[in-house]
Amino acid sequence: MSDLGALGRRAKEAAGALALVPTSDKDLALHTAADLLLERSEEVLAANADDVARAEAAGTGPTVVDRLRLTAERVVAMADGLRQVAALADPVGEVVAGWVRPNGLRIQQVRVPLGVVAIIYENRPNVTSDAFGLCLKSGNAAFLRGSSAAISSNQAVAEVIREALAKTGLPEDALVLVDDTSRESAVAFMRLRGVVDVLIPRGGPSLIAAVLEHATVPVVIDGAGNCHVYVDATADLAMATEIVVNAKTQRPSVCNAAESLVVHQSVAGELLPTLAEALAGVELVGDLAAREAEPSIGPAEPEDFATEFLGPKMSVAVVPDLDAAIAHVNRHSSGHSEAIVTADLAAATRFTREVDAAAVLVNASTRFVDGERFGFGAEIGISTQKLHARGPMGLRELTTTKYVVHGDGHVV
Amino acid sequence: MSDLGALGRRAKEAAGALALVPTSDKDLALHTAADLLLERSEEVLAANADDVARAEAAGTGPTVVDRLRLTAERVVAMADGLRQVAALADPVGEVVAGWVRPNGLRIQQVRVPLGVVAIIYENRPNVTSDAFGLCLKSGNAAFLRGSSAAISSNQAVAEVIREALAKTGLPEDALVLVDDTSRESAVAFMRLRGVVDVLIPRGGPSLIAAVLEHATVPVVIDGAGNCHVYVDATADLAMATEIVVNAKTQRPSVCNAAESLVVHQSVAGELLPTLAEALAGVELVGDLAAREAEPSIGPAEPEDFATEFLGPKMSVAVVPDLDAAIAHVNRHSSGHSEAIVTADLAAATRFTREVDAAAVLVNASTRFVDGERFGFGAEIGISTQKLHARGPMGLRELTTTKYVVHGDGHVV
Repeated sequence: MSDLGALGRRAKEAAGALALVPTSDKDLALHTAADLLLERSEEVLAANADDVARAEAAGTGPTVVDRLRLTAERVVAMADGLRQVAALADPVGEVVAGWVRPNGLRIQQVRVPLGVVAIIYENRPNVTSDAFGLCLKSGNAAFLRGSSAAISSNQAVAEVIREALAKTGLPEDALVLVDDTSRESAVAFMRLRGVVDVLIPRGGPSLIAAVLEHATVPVVIDGAGNCHVYVDATADLAMATEIVVNAKTQRPSVCNAAESLVVHQSVAGELLPTLAEALAGVELVGDLAAREAEPSIGPAEPEDFATEFLGPKMSVAVVPDLDAAIAHVNRHSSGHSEAIVTADLAAATRFTREVDAAAVLVNASTRFVDGERFGFGAEIGISTQKLHARGPMGLRELTTTKYVVHGDGHVV
Repeated sequence: MSDLGALGRRAKEAAGALALVPTSDKDLALHTAADLLLERSEEVLAANADDVARAEAAGTGPTVVDRLRLTAERVVAMADGLRQVAALADPVGEVVAGWVRPNGLRIQQVRVPLGVVAIIYENRPNVTSDAFGLCLKSGNAAFLRGSSAAISSNQAVAEVIREALAKTGLPEDALVLVDDTSRESAVAFMRLRGVVDVLIPRGGPSLIAAVLEHATVPVVIDGAGNCHVYVDATADLAMATEIVVNAKTQRPSVCNAAESLVVHQSVAGELLPTLAEALAGVELVGDLAAREAEPSIGPAEPEDFATEFLGPKMSVAVVPDLDAAIAHVNRHSSGHSEAIVTADLAAATRFTREVDAAAVLVNASTRFVDGERFGFGAEIGISTQKLHARGPMGLRELTTTKYVVHGDGHVV
């Protein structure tokens, strides 16, 4: 096992320097890294071909191989991603608040980088450059640990980026990639207190569970999305159909896709048959009332209502009223994104106040809950925890604050 | 062991209701609790007398007994504390940010309570009412676990407050006190994932270490303060003396008291003899240069520079320049509060930018870093971590946010 502690300390030292780097220098490094990624695209693709060949030889399924595979277009997208981040506003130095105390003491709360941002992720090699870009722009060192399947790709991308950093006079260790992808190294990575300022796991439920079990460093959980759409009694049913179809099928594999439909009993009979047709190809499983309204709906197991399917399956519950709808959503929600379709102001107000989730939506698809679509330019993930950041995380969520206090000899 | 999980679920259920309670109802409950504390003062003092007698019989030292002891005045102060919190602005519902996307989608980021705030604390029984007050005002349920030494006092205070809650129609479980003060119960308390939204330990290093080791719930660390005062070459030495004396001696037992003095070599010869006199009663230990400048300074062990003495002892280091001062502070800082005394603008700017701490002060005592002195009205603690909250934590730091998104049938 490589000396993880030593790698972490290199990232920490780089973080100390990065916190003071002017925006223009960070942007130059991002553009230089983008240029170099394109220039050395063949090298990156060759490394990736090794990973893909290894994965295929090991009998890895096509979905996973697709996530692993880079193409010339995907490398261009990675380079474009870095340029997009360069174009975003630098959050460092923002004065969040400032005031003067009655005794004349001047207090400012100033945005500063977190320091070392550790990210543990699964197969997609583009996370290596995407995460680096967001960390660098927000003044943090990126301490990255990808999967063993993607190690050659990640090393190639990291090498190119580190070269770009050196070329522009920034510390190479602004990106430190852990090359030991063993299980023990993953656990040790989660326990580097005093080195890692925040750990953001990006991956499936087993990764999240391992982090919750082992991590001693501060964590932001980019968790599952068992997202609901509730169609209220007063909903415009054409709008409801469009929103449900979009939320469920536009990209079913992502965390902000809908998994659960909740329908007010007064519209179930009209809505569910239409919706079942519009959702052709999606397996619907529901409670008794749902199945009475639309016989093609299969019986739901209790756990279906709490499952993030990430595919063409959806649970359907029929509720007698708004109270029951809110209770159902709060019982099964993973705290990600929950939507109501309604024409009733009071229902919209109650739903948005009483449903406990990172995002609550009225008459809009859950698919909008995303850093890009929120206008953050890019995102490092979507937090489903309440501490530090909740919902889509952009550059600002990769910072903390510091109080700067000025006196003239003030004593207590 | 009582069923901690069941207690936690009661707090969680109360939290769901509290999030929706109007400010006026919360304020009424705070005033009612204050009234009732005074009315039932004798009962609280009698319970406290039991705790004190038990502690004294067990041979507990006078400092600890003093922290444990309530007096009529202290009960009045507890009641006043609740009234002060009632007078503060309610952070819940604040719209932190809001914007409209080019497609017309309206996004608001709204401040909401965290939910269940768990606090584990040591002897002071006033924390029971102080913590409750801040939690209630910010719409959270307070899930409290005090020490075994203070159990009778805590139970008496909690009973009075729960009665006040019931009297004003709020859920009694807005305050849930854990009555099992065993070690196992403490560990179980730190692992109530899905129940506890944040755990704030208030106590010494061994409590913090136990939390870091065992907690699986999100934590905000109210950590140690190895606070430095750096006296720069250009400092007004009279001002420096006043600030150092204040920071060290005005209340040595608290986390924002100074523990370490760093002096530029060009002023050490003039400053240290004066300061040694002004700090009469404080044991000074220093490096060679410090001892050459002032012979009464004893030799420092390396660990002295990293120690939070919380008493009449201070380390002294002499540095050749600002770089060395910043490096010394960053090496030994616990990330709490660090001060520079200087007349040099560039030195002040560099120190505030480059020192990594929750608060950096220019020409002011570290003792100002405190929720009251910052103007927050009250504080639940001072965070020395970077995630979620950093520095003094008031009502706002006991909240999270929720995105509320409005569309008109928007789909991706």
